[in-house]
Amino acid sequence: MDELFPLKTLEQFTYDIFVKMGCSDADANLATEVLLNADLRGIDSHGIARLSGYIRLWEAKRINTTPDIRVIHESPSTAVVDGDGGLGLVVAPKAMEIAIRKANTAGTGWVAVKNSNHFGIAGHHAMMALGHDMIGIAMTNASPLVAPTFSVERLLGTNPIAVAIPAKEQPPFVADFATTTAANGKLEILQRKNMNAPLGWIQKKDGSPSDNPHELKDGGALIPLGSDREHGSHKGFCLGAWVDIFSAVLSGANFGPWVPPFVAFLAPPSDPVGDGIGHFFGAMRVDAFRTTEVFKSNMDTWITRFRNATTVADQERVVIPGDPERQTSIIRRKEGIPLNPKVVEDLKILGEKMKVHF
Amino acid sequence: MDELFPLKTLEQFTYDIFVKMGCSDADANLATEVLLNADLRGIDSHGIARLSGYIRLWEAKRINTTPDIRVIHESPSTAVVDGDGGLGLVVAPKAMEIAIRKANTAGTGWVAVKNSNHFGIAGHHAMMALGHDMIGIAMTNASPLVAPTFSVERLLGTNPIAVAIPAKEQPPFVADFATTTAANGKLEILQRKNMNAPLGWIQKKDGSPSDNPHELKDGGALIPLGSDREHGSHKGFCLGAWVDIFSAVLSGANFGPWVPPFVAFLAPPSDPVGDGIGHFFGAMRVDAFRTTEVFKSNMDTWITRFRNATTVADQERVVIPGDPERQTSIIRRKEGIPLNPKVVEDLKILGEKMKVHF
Repeated sequence: MDELFPLKTLEQFTYDIFVKMGCSDADANLATEVLLNADLRGIDSHGIARLSGYIRLWEAKRINTTPDIRVIHESPSTAVVDGDGGLGLVVAPKAMEIAIRKANTAGTGWVAVKNSNHFGIAGHHAMMALGHDMIGIAMTNASPLVAPTFSVERLLGTNPIAVAIPAKEQPPFVADFATTTAANGKLEILQRKNMNAPLGWIQKKDGSPSDNPHELKDGGALIPLGSDREHGSHKGFCLGAWVDIFSAVLSGANFGPWVPPFVAFLAPPSDPVGDGIGHFFGAMRVDAFRTTEVFKSNMDTWITRFRNATTVADQERVVIPGDPERQTSIIRRKEGIPLNPKVVEDLKILGEKMKVHF
Repeated sequence: MDELFPLKTLEQFTYDIFVKMGCSDADANLATEVLLNADLRGIDSHGIARLSGYIRLWEAKRINTTPDIRVIHESPSTAVVDGDGGLGLVVAPKAMEIAIRKANTAGTGWVAVKNSNHFGIAGHHAMMALGHDMIGIAMTNASPLVAPTFSVERLLGTNPIAVAIPAKEQPPFVADFATTTAANGKLEILQRKNMNAPLGWIQKKDGSPSDNPHELKDGGALIPLGSDREHGSHKGFCLGAWVDIFSAVLSGANFGPWVPPFVAFLAPPSDPVGDGIGHFFGAMRVDAFRTTEVFKSNMDTWITRFRNATTVADQERVVIPGDPERQTSIIRRKEGIPLNPKVVEDLKILGEKMKVHF
């Protein structure tokens, strides 16, 4: 049975842990906000459940908690940021701030980041643009778990893309999705529940179909969005490749199979082609295209029309991207955040080790 | 049996037709180049086979062959272009030129277009950036054939995305794909051959699965990339929505179910929410991020590593996006462009009507 924790409790604990790691007060606050936004929005695989993983990477000296995050190349609408091995939870929002600043003067801002680490949920960073009446985009590469169409090798991460678009009376459109058939977090849920995966999510090490959620431990791989060639997995591969190239080849980070693993028990490749992992952010000022008022009012029309579409018999409504996460967030802010007993146990051990009360 | 025609023959015919429609010499040349690039690259559904369709739209006064294509809003890195009802084949490359010009000074350039028509293949426009050592992006919305996840209504077009990325010794990475499981052109091929479609491409008018490629005539719909909810069709819906919003809500074109049909026998919606159809283009100067030389050399590493990945038993190689189209293009330039007998017959009738020799 999951146990409910008030957001404030988890915030305090997470903040204290980041401070113990050596983060500044500001960085610890920022990292806490980003990390727990995943739990709030129901993306449990990217929230506080990852905290002890960050600690293990820090213990292995693969995360720098006092990074000198700086712009190393720029143009009026672009920048490349060196994250100096910092927490992605800190590097990413700072890079997104730079994109927003660039957009203020140039109309749009585009920031590629190298030398970073896991950045939490992409949606958080994309949504930073909304309050500025901007469209936000965030993507990141990730350690290789995905086999391109026809490959038996894992060459890409689940490489998510997030796009956040403001509306007027309606809540914003917020898409945030892995470019695979299913995110790795979905697999972890099946592993915990000892359930099979649908065919089309995973392949065996020889590339044949599998329904075993543990297949990746035996050389298997996740499959790009589309499931197989006939159903467009080559398009999912294009998407994952796009994210990898924008995040890492534009920034000078590691790409493809060279992306370092997120877990401390796996060593980074001995022949890196860049620095750390890479992200890519975009911010586009709505009024660099149209009057903000008219744009937002059109977005209301768009959202309302799609949400009220006639549905198939067993479904109530077309889901507008961002709706489920926003609803979860409202409930969890009020009622608390449910944590799996294994996660609670893990956090208790972490608290004891780091001498932080949980 | 398909008949082979030299590129030059088809170019002359297409150019003559566009001139008869009233296009200027320059516009007729441009439209011919864009249209026939589809045939060269093997995207037969978007090439000369569409020519008589353009004529019918022009006869219905839904295409303006002497448009005043102009920038109606701009910032250092953005512009909105009013295509004045022109051929998308002319409006699109002109808008992409503006994106490239913006990128020259601002680092990146982003152009949303309204009041346009079908623009041929997205890849053509994205690839215009390559010669400038830029990354090119092109997308367009299209008349509604696609049902979002859980919807029985057709609310989106096949809304393609193209991304072109330059390399050094290797040919460029060129992804160009509909955001549906299968492009409408794939369906047309099955219709001609009287073959069934794989499940997951199409749904019946009640949303249940269908393998009938004629299903759209009976109220059915194409399905977003992913095929069903369990395999990520909501992600394909996100992609199609993203293209629709960037192309049309940012520009002031019609969006969603209001996008006017590409065929003259269907009337445009009587309650438009914007002008014509919309496109969106991007150009990013590589050296706004990194030294061009280093970027391109990293792209060579990326491409080579993926192309040489270990494959499943029955496949020779991982296909790098753009490889098949480039190979087709080389062959067709040399050996000619194969046209289906129905297309040849259609072009002969068109030639007689327009008094142009075929």
